[in-house]
Amino acid sequence: MTGAAAKTARADAPTLSVRGNGTRELSGREFAAQLRLEVGARATELTAAGTPPRLAVVVATADDSSAWYVRSIKRAAEQAGIACDIRDLGADATPGAIRAELTALGADPAVHGIILQTPLPDGLALQDLADAIPPAKDIDGANPLSLGRLVTGLPAYAPATAAAVVALLEHHKVELNGRYVAVIGRSSVVGKPLAHLLLDRNATVTVCHSRTRDLAALTSAADVVVAAVGRAGLVRAEHVRDGAVVIDVGTNPTADGGLAGDADAASVATRASALTPVPGGVGPVTTALLLRHTVQAAERARE
Amino acid sequence: MTGAAAKTARADAPTLSVRGNGTRELSGREFAAQLRLEVGARATELTAAGTPPRLAVVVATADDSSAWYVRSIKRAAEQAGIACDIRDLGADATPGAIRAELTALGADPAVHGIILQTPLPDGLALQDLADAIPPAKDIDGANPLSLGRLVTGLPAYAPATAAAVVALLEHHKVELNGRYVAVIGRSSVVGKPLAHLLLDRNATVTVCHSRTRDLAALTSAADVVVAAVGRAGLVRAEHVRDGAVVIDVGTNPTADGGLAGDADAASVATRASALTPVPGGVGPVTTALLLRHTVQAAERARE
Repeated sequence: MTGAAAKTARADAPTLSVRGNGTRELSGREFAAQLRLEVGARATELTAAGTPPRLAVVVATADDSSAWYVRSIKRAAEQAGIACDIRDLGADATPGAIRAELTALGADPAVHGIILQTPLPDGLALQDLADAIPPAKDIDGANPLSLGRLVTGLPAYAPATAAAVVALLEHHKVELNGRYVAVIGRSSVVGKPLAHLLLDRNATVTVCHSRTRDLAALTSAADVVVAAVGRAGLVRAEHVRDGAVVIDVGTNPTADGGLAGDADAASVATRASALTPVPGGVGPVTTALLLRHTVQAAERARE
Repeated sequence: MTGAAAKTARADAPTLSVRGNGTRELSGREFAAQLRLEVGARATELTAAGTPPRLAVVVATADDSSAWYVRSIKRAAEQAGIACDIRDLGADATPGAIRAELTALGADPAVHGIILQTPLPDGLALQDLADAIPPAKDIDGANPLSLGRLVTGLPAYAPATAAAVVALLEHHKVELNGRYVAVIGRSSVVGKPLAHLLLDRNATVTVCHSRTRDLAALTSAADVVVAAVGRAGLVRAEHVRDGAVVIDVGTNPTADGGLAGDADAASVATRASALTPVPGGVGPVTTALLLRHTVQAAERARE
């Protein structure tokens, strides 16, 4: 059954059909462009004031999609007037070499933001190395101290993907106060920090994951469903209540070299009132927020 | 209607009546006694090996119930063979004085565990000062770094109350893997760290709070309900599904000088299969875990 046929078949269920036909695309592109303009203006001011903002990305992988992503950050940074250094330590970098690089960048007053790109060499984990990034430069919230500060309500940069989900919802005026949000995925870079950001906005939050029984029963009670699990097409109509908002954090590579989200968009659209596209949803906002965090860090370095 | 009458009235609803009649008390007293015995044996070994374990409690309040609690920790510590120093800085202690004391205790090799007791003087917050407690001695998980490490899966002491909830559930063989747990309360000392401990055990977790709409609808879907909100009697039968386990973290002072939990025990017992008492449930386990963390810290200091 095609999407159109599904909608026709639902004609006797007016609320579903209305929602199905009217699913809004919560694009991140225009919002990201607006964020990048704001960042560009702040970068220009910083540069004029003698503090040209600078981002450093530490890479220790030969992974292709990672290289593509890092180049896209560099391009976006430079377009916004932020210098971006890529420090490629190679896929066989030792933990000592990675720590030494992070420590040197942490001590360099010309560098305001530091990203440790994943994946890392086999056996190394982000949270074991990211404590070498000073929280004031930890613009992707990778240092466990940043996360702990976030959870206890102290100032800290949130992981940019988690921050992008909330920023995108707020940009599109999706109410969070008092609403019920189901987050699918419990990673420490998305699901867990996102749960805290949502709680801070007075949402009631359920964190679901691969061991959750009867996922659809839980998520279909939610006003907002966030899919951050890394499995293409996992979220379908049965996971979503009529009129819910769906945020798709998934970026799963497809056979043809494209990207697929965690949601089956055609299926979800029969119920959801709004859905983020992949690509073009959370992704561009994430990159823009990394840049915004970098200018914030540069501004704070001047205080 | 008395509890007995309620049960009689439910005689035509066999599952409820069976559950109601058979509500198990999940006592923490025997488990805490068992933990203290284990701690005592480890403390004896440590002392024999030349490392007598030592706990320091920094107090900066004139609050009566806090003084009572600190004395009870000291008594329990000493009974288990752990020296316990109370450093009373007075209710008008400055942040500088509190930090200096924590820093000195952090540097003292004879001290293995440090607690910064709340409440603190007006305008001071635990998370603003607890970063002066080295994570290796942070046996109540108050330093934001400890919390961040916990969330990212690195070794860290969890806040003792949150750890006590999980330990009590595990002691009483309540399955968490794949189960649905509703936590009522989002504090950074109980609700939030507890959510992480539960996720680590593969539970699906909902965090509810004062702004949650239709609390009963959410909590009555859960296999386990944890009440950690600080409002006597908030959780009643309608919040609990038939057969659920209820853990009551509340310790609300009553008019007659006693303690009341967040659950209305008589009401909850008509549905719950098991319920922790207050006092005598989570409380004694929390104290015992503070002592266990202290001997762990002393053992690690020897490594």
